[in-house]
Amino acid sequence: MTNNRTELSELGEFGLIERIKSKFQTVNSTTLKGIGDDAAMLDAGDNAFLVSTDMLLEGIHFDLSYMPLQHLGYKAVAVNVSDIAAMNGTPEQIVLGLAISNRFSLEAIDAFFEGVQAACKNYNVDLVGGDTSSSAAGLVIAITVLGRVAHDRAVKRSGAKANDIICVTGDLGAAYLGLQVLEREKQVFLSNPDMQPDLEKYEYLVGRQLKPEARMDIVHELRDKNCLPTSMIDISDGLASELFHLSKNSNLGVKIFEDKVPIDHATFETAIEFKLDPITCALHGGEDYELLFTINPADYDKLKNHPDIHFIGHMHNDPTQHVLVTKQQTAVPLQAQGWNHF
Amino acid sequence: MTNNRTELSELGEFGLIERIKSKFQTVNSTTLKGIGDDAAMLDAGDNAFLVSTDMLLEGIHFDLSYMPLQHLGYKAVAVNVSDIAAMNGTPEQIVLGLAISNRFSLEAIDAFFEGVQAACKNYNVDLVGGDTSSSAAGLVIAITVLGRVAHDRAVKRSGAKANDIICVTGDLGAAYLGLQVLEREKQVFLSNPDMQPDLEKYEYLVGRQLKPEARMDIVHELRDKNCLPTSMIDISDGLASELFHLSKNSNLGVKIFEDKVPIDHATFETAIEFKLDPITCALHGGEDYELLFTINPADYDKLKNHPDIHFIGHMHNDPTQHVLVTKQQTAVPLQAQGWNHF
Repeated sequence: MTNNRTELSELGEFGLIERIKSKFQTVNSTTLKGIGDDAAMLDAGDNAFLVSTDMLLEGIHFDLSYMPLQHLGYKAVAVNVSDIAAMNGTPEQIVLGLAISNRFSLEAIDAFFEGVQAACKNYNVDLVGGDTSSSAAGLVIAITVLGRVAHDRAVKRSGAKANDIICVTGDLGAAYLGLQVLEREKQVFLSNPDMQPDLEKYEYLVGRQLKPEARMDIVHELRDKNCLPTSMIDISDGLASELFHLSKNSNLGVKIFEDKVPIDHATFETAIEFKLDPITCALHGGEDYELLFTINPADYDKLKNHPDIHFIGHMHNDPTQHVLVTKQQTAVPLQAQGWNHF
Repeated sequence: MTNNRTELSELGEFGLIERIKSKFQTVNSTTLKGIGDDAAMLDAGDNAFLVSTDMLLEGIHFDLSYMPLQHLGYKAVAVNVSDIAAMNGTPEQIVLGLAISNRFSLEAIDAFFEGVQAACKNYNVDLVGGDTSSSAAGLVIAITVLGRVAHDRAVKRSGAKANDIICVTGDLGAAYLGLQVLEREKQVFLSNPDMQPDLEKYEYLVGRQLKPEARMDIVHELRDKNCLPTSMIDISDGLASELFHLSKNSNLGVKIFEDKVPIDHATFETAIEFKLDPITCALHGGEDYELLFTINPADYDKLKNHPDIHFIGHMHNDPTQHVLVTKQQTAVPLQAQGWNHF
């Protein structure tokens, strides 16, 4: 017997996804778009159905020592809704798989579902089914979200054109620094349980980590302003990684400007406190769940006064060149770091 | 602080699902049927979209010491497809969430996906998306399946009428006994690793546990014979438990006959060997993934010669009476035992 063992870490998460994708061809005429975007697209007459799924595992994606179960329920729905937003669609239903170990009481599970309910209400989504199971280890949450979009309003990762303007909503890096703050306070608490965490100063950052929102408001506003992005993705793994997805799928290069990347002052100050470079946090910190999209330059006037949309650069024709122009006007190559779960 | 802790085991799985269901109202007009059937139904023009989700956790739903990963991949798809079959629908797409610990090699994951691929091919289903993650503990699989059915062909749990004939496909109890055989061989192996398991005699039972099939063949045949069941469910938790679902949702009572319940001779003999009552295995053993459905007596002639459909009893008007008539012609109350994961 030969010892053929390849570690998953040799491929990484994206490598594994590419490998799976290459093995599966789609055969049903109702499958409009399979693996490789924020959501799959299925034919539903005048509309396309959008389908996306996300798993959250205790000890990997969340730590219950600082994540209240109510927030966790909310976040689990929000991060899925964010994938529908990234296709320019409207979420309508979710199904929820939940594996629970016996250390959770009914009251704890009720708290989790209060969060799910609050998110369903906020995003106008129906919980239509699910699966419950026991778990030998931690809590596992698997949500699949279903949404809808008119065929001519669907926005994929692949539609960007050279000279399209790169836009990002909100601000970046805060959720990552919120996580750093929570991790530090946890260590303080573990070494001295009498210490009460003082999180007031970090309220914004911690809130961004614990209570992210899907930017459905932006999806609605883009429609109201009659602006259809040419490509879009949500920022779950960090700006740089998502830029690479857009550029790869659109076969283009990317140029962004450091001084245009939106960073909140709390993010900036806390990055310095943690001896981190703020732009690094914004480029590679995950879980912001903001929208990254490209627009035709002709649409710029429609959005230029929007207080929460930032124009950070543009796409260009050379798919091998991805650069960040620093505040010192130096062009440095963008690195796609992102998260590697393996 | 009062100590309000209610154990989940006090409610049980069905109690928890009822509790969740009671808290969530649906608001979208496209939600045709929410929690409470084998699949949710969403509006898709001429058709209804069917959505169902299932999680499989290592150590809870499968044991990799006797479940080859290829079979696991196949089974994970098949059990989801079975839920679409139970609505009389056709499966079209799946999304797959997979959490993997670093003890799995790429070759192991390839084997898993070979099974997924074989099932997708067999059931004509497209893998259109998913999520991969690391896991701190065992393997976790979360599949959501999407299917379609014409509005007037959808079969719910709630449509049975008094005097409808109760039908079941295939035979029952084999998957449960297959599991008992595998568990026994595992214990033998653990106490003496030089012992090679002799499973030949139990091939049918072990196959039913490791390689279940969704009964899409029956769905197609029912359509060809122009027979629309009045209610339907798949047998994942055991015949008795599923009968209770049909009777509760249809507000009727159930009467079945022991001598009509299909039990394979291998199931019968192995039950005796394990000192188990064969009818108990058929009533309460799970994972058969056969279809349980009711038909209008007027449709009996269409199915009466089908070699794999068995007529085991009928529905009646008293929703408090659920009886099994034994081979000795004694009517005993049916117990809904099923599986309780908590």
